[in-house]
Formats: sequence, structure tokens, C-alpha cells
Amino acid sequence: MKIGVLGTGMVGETLATALVHQGHSTCMGSRSAGNEKAAAWAKKAGPDASHGSFADAADFGELIFVATHGGATLHAIHMAGVDNLRGKIVIDVTNPLDFSQGMPPRILKEYQDVSLGEQMQHALTGSHIVKALNTMNCQLMVDARQVNSGDHELFLCGDSTSAKAYVCKFLEENFNWESAHIRDLGGISLARTMEAIVPLWVVLYGHIGTGMFNYKIVR
Amino acid sequence: MKIGVLGTGMVGETLATALVHQGHSTCMGSRSAGNEKAAAWAKKAGPDASHGSFADAADFGELIFVATHGGATLHAIHMAGVDNLRGKIVIDVTNPLDFSQGMPPRILKEYQDVSLGEQMQHALTGSHIVKALNTMNCQLMVDARQVNSGDHELFLCGDSTSAKAYVCKFLEENFNWESAHIRDLGGISLARTMEAIVPLWVVLYGHIGTGMFNYKIVR
Repeated sequence: MKIGVLGTGMVGETLATALVHQGHSTCMGSRSAGNEKAAAWAKKAGPDASHGSFADAADFGELIFVATHGGATLHAIHMAGVDNLRGKIVIDVTNPLDFSQGMPPRILKEYQDVSLGEQMQHALTGSHIVKALNTMNCQLMVDARQVNSGDHELFLCGDSTSAKAYVCKFLEENFNWESAHIRDLGGISLARTMEAIVPLWVVLYGHIGTGMFNYKIVR
Repeated sequence: MKIGVLGTGMVGETLATALVHQGHSTCMGSRSAGNEKAAAWAKKAGPDASHGSFADAADFGELIFVATHGGATLHAIHMAGVDNLRGKIVIDVTNPLDFSQGMPPRILKEYQDVSLGEQMQHALTGSHIVKALNTMNCQLMVDARQVNSGDHELFLCGDSTSAKAYVCKFLEENFNWESAHIRDLGGISLARTMEAIVPLWVVLYGHIGTGMFNYKIVR
């Protein structure tokens, strides 16, 4: 299918590359249509890869991944265009982290009361935001089997039940996430709880020395 | 040894009961020395159990557990008395949760920038605060083996290395927490990351239908 990925950072590039490998036509969107990183990626990733502005990628995709820097995300969404995203499922992978006061990172002040996932849904009332994948390393996002044979948890939330069901199926078919390990927390307001656990993840990353770990719920 | 437990709620009572079972003389402290719940507990828990004001319990204990409601904790500490707690290890089990706006709970506004654990350390400069056990059900706190044979994580932080080492040993000897599963995150500023993950825990509790679960880090 045709997929738009907003963001040219490590997360955006890892997602876009994996999506091309899965046979999807993928357009990487960035602030400016001539972004060098996006152009280099598209050249390397082959004929199914393309690049353009945020609006180009939003218009192109039938499904959208948002992987911009947390603090820049709402502006990126605005640039992508409400109309270009209308009626589409938008997977929000972002984290509103603030490293400006050192470790551990904080949640950016403007997202402490109302999460970035919720604010994205408010900004895109005609789209179906599903918050997912933001609680782990990007290499793990695109292949769950890379840690503990896939036996660990992916948290997800969103207001649209059908959009969440679609995303679950997509993650299973493309990124090897078994449905038993996908924990649907509820509506988009639950994005708050998913964003809040990421500072701990960053600290554990420092201690463990690799991002290739995740949480498994045990009983 | 002599232990003071501040708080008469479910967490305080579970901790105090387990400590008595482990052979420790335990004093449960509450806002007023004549608290009925504390008196009933002490009567039921036997000769090693006693009760009194926060100040009584703080004075009594060589080691202190703080298990008060999040929003009431700094006031409880003040009532317990800085001098009564001086030089002692204080294990902070509290969570500054705000359920007033419904689910999921939020972190109380006054602890979003500086965590409750940090504020407790600021209030008790002569004591050694160790934040621990706050990320799980109280039945699990006092016996790690009740979930997955003890194979799951306990997070802990604090500014005093020796206090943390003492607490690790205490938790291993009394509550069956193997040292391999105790993750020392760093100084007391890391309390922020430990408090931040509790709203997700509350949501998962609702979904799973029991508090007898925990996170295991898998690679």
C-alpha cells in the first residue's frame, strides 16, 4: 500500500526502510521538499521509496506514520495539512521529551497535562490517531522478534476501535507483533500513560547499554 | 529490628504486617495517635506491633517506610519530625497520583516538575531517602515470589549508595527480592521516572483484573 512517513530522523528512516522492505510504496516527508537526508534515503531505498514535503507525504499515504521530534510534531502536522490527513489512520510514534535539563529527560511542559497523542487527535479531528510503538527502540518497532522471540509488550491506544484493529493487523503482518502482545489500553487519552514511561526507558537504555530490550508483563 | 511505618492504608498495613511476620518490632504511625485502624492492626498483629502518631513511629524506627497517600506525604513527614528521622534510611513507597479528573490518573501538579521522592529528600536533608516498591501492588512488594517466581523488576533510586545497598539487602532477606532483579536507577532525581510509570500500572491493573503482575525486562 502507499504509506507516508513524517520525519527523517532515525525513527522515521528505520520505519520507512522497513516499510519499503515489506513491499509498500513509501514517501518520507520532511519540512522542506528538498531535504538531503530524505533524498539520500529515497535513493538508497530503491524504486518504492520517494520523498517530499510533509504535505506531499501526507497526501501520498493511505496510512501515515508520524515520527517527528516531539516538540516539532504539531507544527509538522499543521504543515502536512488537515485535509491531506482527513479520513486516514495516523500512527503516532512520537515522544514529547525534554532533554534540556539533563537526565533523566522530562516530558515537555506543554504535554504534561494533555499528551501529544491527544493534542494530535484534537488537531486532526477528521483522522484516526493510534498511538503505538513509541515506548521502544526503533529497530524493535519494525521486528518484534529481535527481542525475546517477540514475547514482550506493545502498548497502543486510540479513539477508533476499527483503526486500532487495522493497526494491530498491520503490525502483525509487517513487523511481527503477535496480537497477544499488543495491549490496547483504551482511548487516545491513554497516550498520556504511554508517553510518561519513556523517560524510564531512556534511563534503562543507559544502564543496559542497548535499546534492544522491552518489558514483558508477567503474572 | 525496630521499624516505623508511616501510613495506615492498604500499603502501610501490608508492609507493617509483613515486617512483623519477619520478626521486626513495627510501629504504625498515623496522623493522630489514637487512630482506630492503627489500633486495630496492632491488636491483631501481636506483641511486636505497636502504633502511635507519625512522630512516635518515626522516633521508634531505626528504619522507616513511608506509605502515606501521595498528596498527604510531605505534611506527614513534617508531622513525623525532621529530627526523629535524622540519620535514618527512609524508604519512600508513595505515589503522587491525582484521580480527581478520572482515569487514567495523573501525577499531581505539584510533583510533575520535581518528584515526591526528591521533595522528600529536600525536606529531610539529614535522612537517606530510597525510593522503592512504589511501582507495584503491595502484596507483591512484600513477597516477590508471588509473581513469576520472583523473576521481574524492582526499581530503586536514592542519593546514598550505602543506604541503597542496605535496602537491597533488606528487601532480599525480608521480601524475597533477588539482587539481580533490583534495578538501581541512580540518584533520587530518578524518582521522577519511577513515579511516572504508575498511571500505566493503574490502567493495566484495570485491564488484567489483578494487581499481581509486574514488568520483566527482556532482551
